[in-house]
Amino acid sequence: MPDDLRAVADRAREASRRLATAPRAVKDTALHAMADAVLEARADVLAANAEDVEAARESGTAAHLLDRLRLDAERVAATAEGLRQVASLPDPVGEVVRGSRLPNGLELRQLRVPFGVVGVIYEARPNVTTDAAGICLKAGSAVLLRGSASALRSNTVVVRVLRTALEEAGLPADLVALVPGEGREGAAALMRARGLVDVLVPRGGAGLIRSVVESSTVPVIETGVGNCHVYVDASADLDMALSIVANAKTQRTSVCNAAESLLVHEAVADELVPRLVALLQESGVTVHGDERFAAHAGVVPATEEDWATEYLSLDIAARVVPDLDAAIDHVRRWSTGHSEAIVTESRSAADRFVAEVDAAAVLVNASTRFVDGGELGFGAEIGISTQKLHARGPMGLPEMTTTKYVVSGHGQTRS
Amino acid sequence: MPDDLRAVADRAREASRRLATAPRAVKDTALHAMADAVLEARADVLAANAEDVEAARESGTAAHLLDRLRLDAERVAATAEGLRQVASLPDPVGEVVRGSRLPNGLELRQLRVPFGVVGVIYEARPNVTTDAAGICLKAGSAVLLRGSASALRSNTVVVRVLRTALEEAGLPADLVALVPGEGREGAAALMRARGLVDVLVPRGGAGLIRSVVESSTVPVIETGVGNCHVYVDASADLDMALSIVANAKTQRTSVCNAAESLLVHEAVADELVPRLVALLQESGVTVHGDERFAAHAGVVPATEEDWATEYLSLDIAARVVPDLDAAIDHVRRWSTGHSEAIVTESRSAADRFVAEVDAAAVLVNASTRFVDGGELGFGAEIGISTQKLHARGPMGLPEMTTTKYVVSGHGQTRS
Repeated sequence: MPDDLRAVADRAREASRRLATAPRAVKDTALHAMADAVLEARADVLAANAEDVEAARESGTAAHLLDRLRLDAERVAATAEGLRQVASLPDPVGEVVRGSRLPNGLELRQLRVPFGVVGVIYEARPNVTTDAAGICLKAGSAVLLRGSASALRSNTVVVRVLRTALEEAGLPADLVALVPGEGREGAAALMRARGLVDVLVPRGGAGLIRSVVESSTVPVIETGVGNCHVYVDASADLDMALSIVANAKTQRTSVCNAAESLLVHEAVADELVPRLVALLQESGVTVHGDERFAAHAGVVPATEEDWATEYLSLDIAARVVPDLDAAIDHVRRWSTGHSEAIVTESRSAADRFVAEVDAAAVLVNASTRFVDGGELGFGAEIGISTQKLHARGPMGLPEMTTTKYVVSGHGQTRS
Repeated sequence: MPDDLRAVADRAREASRRLATAPRAVKDTALHAMADAVLEARADVLAANAEDVEAARESGTAAHLLDRLRLDAERVAATAEGLRQVASLPDPVGEVVRGSRLPNGLELRQLRVPFGVVGVIYEARPNVTTDAAGICLKAGSAVLLRGSASALRSNTVVVRVLRTALEEAGLPADLVALVPGEGREGAAALMRARGLVDVLVPRGGAGLIRSVVESSTVPVIETGVGNCHVYVDASADLDMALSIVANAKTQRTSVCNAAESLLVHEAVADELVPRLVALLQESGVTVHGDERFAAHAGVVPATEEDWATEYLSLDIAARVVPDLDAAIDHVRRWSTGHSEAIVTESRSAADRFVAEVDAAAVLVNASTRFVDGGELGFGAEIGISTQKLHARGPMGLPEMTTTKYVVSGHGQTRS
């Protein structure tokens, strides 16, 4: 463990100790102060970001990655707004999750308490810096941030601004810190910082997440790759099916809750397949289909790889299945456990799909695009967990905490 | 990934799919059938176990490890009783954790659902085989068991008996299986079986747990090392303090919730230290003390290593601290995050200790020995988690499940 990471983590731990007992009002005041400070420092943030973008462009970074890296006045305003939104959410810390009086008179309470120190590893999206800092602060934890080297100038300025704002609000600056270290070494040290860091949240693409999951000795909350399916059952309302498929695929393509695969029950295939192909193609979607779909002009024959692909683009894999069992088997085989939808008017088909599909979210007659902390009413979201441990699905503030049992007695001993 | 582990895990996954929708009555019937079968096969189990014990003795295994490995009629009966007790507990699967109707009319429910496939890695205690199988079955998951090679004959017979009982009860035998593979390779493969196994629970000593935590790419629930402290505050009822310290240290020494360290506020040290030393020494406890304690005959001077040691024996580290802050600092420095107790009549001291000590359980005026699933009323326990992710403290059946969001609509799309 490099000494400098240890020092930063130790200071974060000390700072988190003070934050753990801070009442909501103190945290909310700090969040508004952070929002004000980010807006006030907008020129500095944008100047640093322009350098990052220029350097990335010179090194040949692809246009869509430059777009993620780029901040503008509107995006800075949105990050400030995000901090204010977190301030408006209920405080998860202190919630009594359960409580009882035991037969021997002991009073048992399980309380929601902060993790302590959270690590976040992310890609070249400087807005994550502010988002993660705000969510962790409200959840009572210090945060160690490790963004991409290509966003280092932006992140350095943003973190400096946030730290100053925290201090002015009467909280320790060390609640928010960048992980020291050049290149990949900083991230690698963070992943080995078991005991110094309580939980690690990777935010980014499949490669980043896999690398963190495989290398980290710190417990990880895996966030999400989404190979999401929409299955149109024999009994579906076909107009509803068309509307849900179009929405799930095209409303926004670059996100993990967009649909990537389409399954159609044979009984409705003759009527539905041509309408689906036409509707999707009208929206610019390339259909990668099995032979039933590929009989239509413009449909690309699907290979096995298509069933596994999270396109994040205007592409969809499509297949006709003989029955509900085949649909469930296909989903169980290829799902990444994010969000899976069935369109059906059959109660029994819906029940079986819900019970047998193994995913963070299963939807009946609704678009996969709803699986999002904001849409489900959780407020801020730090990511969508596709693992089964700790949190599954959109993670709001309560998911960014742990619990503690408090046992109060008057001298009880065990016999 | 060895093919044979993949095959076993795939069969377990298929079996778990059937179990996931099995109602409580089916699971409870199977648990009683498993209990009956273990009792009926007692002679075979004991014969296999005798071979294990003999082989271990010949290879020079220490007496206390032989004791853990050894089964007798009473222990077999206790494992059967454990299965019946699990049958008597409420079914965690299907519980609605939360639910609401969203503004757009979507109905949201978060349901408790099984993990799917759970891996358990444990040492040479064949009773864990039955315990883990029973808990996982009731929680709706298949279980892959990897015990110590020295208990292989015992485990093989027990697993065969359980599998037959499952089949006779109408459930798939593949819900319970041993991990194939010689020596450490089987365990190593299980730790890399990400995607095949949903969660791994190591049960055993600190070495086993550390090795699993460091090597596993499957999410792990860490169970517990307990360097538990009792702090006697300035305002403590001294008789109560004596009783709690004695109970926490001596009621049972080999368990993770036994006290290993004792802190005494300076204000009560003159009166309390001699009484504590006398009481502990009467019970055969060796006190490893700071200079205030070491002034008493028979007290061994403590080194820094003592503050870190989980003795699991009739030993205790003891120190006088100048104030509550020093006590909290000591605990924060040396605690393993298991169970920490304060004895005090001061409301503010108790509140601060509870808030600032970072552990799965904090006790006020009660023995650390109460931190146990059975004592806290959770019924069966698969271990005590000292990590902050997913479960913290004693893990009962609900902690051995995950959740799934179910979103039901009538054609809603996102705009």
